[in-house]
Amino acid sequence: MEIYLDNSATTKPKEEVIDIMVKSMKEYYGNPSSLHRKGVEIEKLIKKARKQISKALGADEGEIYFTSGGTESNNLAILGALKGNKRKGKHIITTKIEHPSVLNVFNSLEEDGYEVSYLNVDKNGLIDINDFEKSLREDTVLISIMYVNNEVGTIQPIPEITKIIKNRKNKPILHIDAVQAFGKIKINLRKLKVDLMSISGHKISGPKGIGALYVRRGTKINSIVFGGNQELGLRSGTENVPGILGLGVAADLVKKNIDSNIEKMKGLKMKLAKEIGENLEEIKINGDIDENSAPHILNISFKGIRGEVLIHTLEQKNIYVSTGSACSSKKKTFSHVLKEMGLENDEMEGAIRFSLSPENTEEEIDYTVENLKKSVEDLRKVIGRR
Amino acid sequence: MEIYLDNSATTKPKEEVIDIMVKSMKEYYGNPSSLHRKGVEIEKLIKKARKQISKALGADEGEIYFTSGGTESNNLAILGALKGNKRKGKHIITTKIEHPSVLNVFNSLEEDGYEVSYLNVDKNGLIDINDFEKSLREDTVLISIMYVNNEVGTIQPIPEITKIIKNRKNKPILHIDAVQAFGKIKINLRKLKVDLMSISGHKISGPKGIGALYVRRGTKINSIVFGGNQELGLRSGTENVPGILGLGVAADLVKKNIDSNIEKMKGLKMKLAKEIGENLEEIKINGDIDENSAPHILNISFKGIRGEVLIHTLEQKNIYVSTGSACSSKKKTFSHVLKEMGLENDEMEGAIRFSLSPENTEEEIDYTVENLKKSVEDLRKVIGRR
Repeated sequence: MEIYLDNSATTKPKEEVIDIMVKSMKEYYGNPSSLHRKGVEIEKLIKKARKQISKALGADEGEIYFTSGGTESNNLAILGALKGNKRKGKHIITTKIEHPSVLNVFNSLEEDGYEVSYLNVDKNGLIDINDFEKSLREDTVLISIMYVNNEVGTIQPIPEITKIIKNRKNKPILHIDAVQAFGKIKINLRKLKVDLMSISGHKISGPKGIGALYVRRGTKINSIVFGGNQELGLRSGTENVPGILGLGVAADLVKKNIDSNIEKMKGLKMKLAKEIGENLEEIKINGDIDENSAPHILNISFKGIRGEVLIHTLEQKNIYVSTGSACSSKKKTFSHVLKEMGLENDEMEGAIRFSLSPENTEEEIDYTVENLKKSVEDLRKVIGRR
Repeated sequence: MEIYLDNSATTKPKEEVIDIMVKSMKEYYGNPSSLHRKGVEIEKLIKKARKQISKALGADEGEIYFTSGGTESNNLAILGALKGNKRKGKHIITTKIEHPSVLNVFNSLEEDGYEVSYLNVDKNGLIDINDFEKSLREDTVLISIMYVNNEVGTIQPIPEITKIIKNRKNKPILHIDAVQAFGKIKINLRKLKVDLMSISGHKISGPKGIGALYVRRGTKINSIVFGGNQELGLRSGTENVPGILGLGVAADLVKKNIDSNIEKMKGLKMKLAKEIGENLEEIKINGDIDENSAPHILNISFKGIRGEVLIHTLEQKNIYVSTGSACSSKKKTFSHVLKEMGLENDEMEGAIRFSLSPENTEEEIDYTVENLKKSVEDLRKVIGRR
């Protein structure tokens, strides 16, 4: 038995995704830019994938642009939109708990003369909507906010944000990083009036190395890579056809199964939280467990224990979890997200992220809690905590 | 029978490449940044792929950085090296026949205040080494030159360029776009003293959506994408593991088969050129056929005929060729490469690129020439050329 509870780091691709990728490599291996039939047939398949993704998001086909992943989507959204709106203003807004692919872009923009408002979050990782409203200025050109936080699962109040900015004279561009939201909460872009939205293939049981950026029709955005002007000039480079087709299939599966997936993950998350609460002591759940919280992420601090040690203890039992995000896990610094939520040092040190997929089972949760209890108790004995 | 002679646009991935990618998606699906075993095992596989690539290039493992493809490698090389060497100078050099992923970057750099020397080429698409030497200035910071041209196959004199810049006081950084060179001519970076070199997976029977940049140890280069600082900080974004492993296998196959592959492709190219010359009239071979020419590309003008029409005529016979490069094939403008080589309009209009792989056979060449002869004669009859 292998129990993979690190689905926010990456997911196992679905069989259907692998199948279309293999078919693409064996049969549809041409270059979509080629004029002959082998190019034309692939262009049609890409169009189909674009449609699958747009349908899963409530967007139009022409609003989906393929990138190499969530990081590139976030970079393109922010840097590209600012390039396309140079004269609109010099003030930009984000939060203190963004993914590095947003936060590091904002840091670099400060060097380029932009003024940045970094919004605080409360103990559950939630921004204050009044704070947000107050941070808006006449020259605010862009706002970038994560829909679902990758470490604790907090859902930010995007609909309220769209309401606030809707009627502003110089309406700022709103980008949301939905890498951890897509497939985990319902998204309908016809209702959710954001301008730009990033998604990633490998977080939804799709391929690695592929992502997309939703660009609402009419949003001014420039490319940040120069070349053959693929993707209507926004993103140059020969299309990653197998990745694109795989993302299309993965998005289609999201659309078909979103309700049951959410219910399944939410049930497993609540069970996991409840059983950990009943079986282990000196723990702290980080972030909301129910309201404003995604169904797939549960972040818990096991006090007195080093998260990294617990990870290695659990992997002996074939249980795979993580400390913070995978991207920053090797940095040996405390999570900036947990820090901004006001956790104590020992709470940050002992934090573990369990992240679920609809493939996980109740038996896996039982097995995990059983081994977690034993591991945590053993580790605490070693350090003499009890 | 399907005769694919558009291998410079893209290639069909090798079975071994597909196999490792499928294995990676089914078994090694973790995130290499994860601290647990599923991350660690993948990090080892990535290290192996890096080694395979570095061995095929005569480089060190630590000099290979993964990107999403040739376009990103070229952008990163040029923009990243200039960012890392801001105070070294404002003059940069390239040629007039580069790929758009270099040429368009240079155009954008002019807007940023850089002074660019665009080198001319002769009728074979070759730069003049004296011109190059004369273009060098005290404040030349970067040179970017394509090793093998993607439309006509011309090999630029990179070793002579390295000799000229070797002893200069402010030695400029030398980047070469080797996307069409890798696997087609022998490259040993221990001898060929370039600083940066771009390669792409899908041009060597590897995966689409993956490429690499060789960065000679000691070369200052900054990242152009911000995020989780993967690839030692040079290229953020969750690693495209299946793509990386597939590129590793493809590079390993290049290394093992380079001599026989070159011989095979060269033989087919010479046969194709000879038989076209013997069977068809009013043709013109664009570029050198033998000296300074890659073994896989043959560009021929069929006078009086529109290349696009010939492509569609040939595809009826299951023969796939292209006009210029795939990237610019839809632009309906004449190839900038052929224009710089001084071709007449009707020569540009009737230009066809045949690009070979070692998988092609002599029978395919015979069949191609036979159908080409018939198609060209028929088309010429229609327009009353004879």
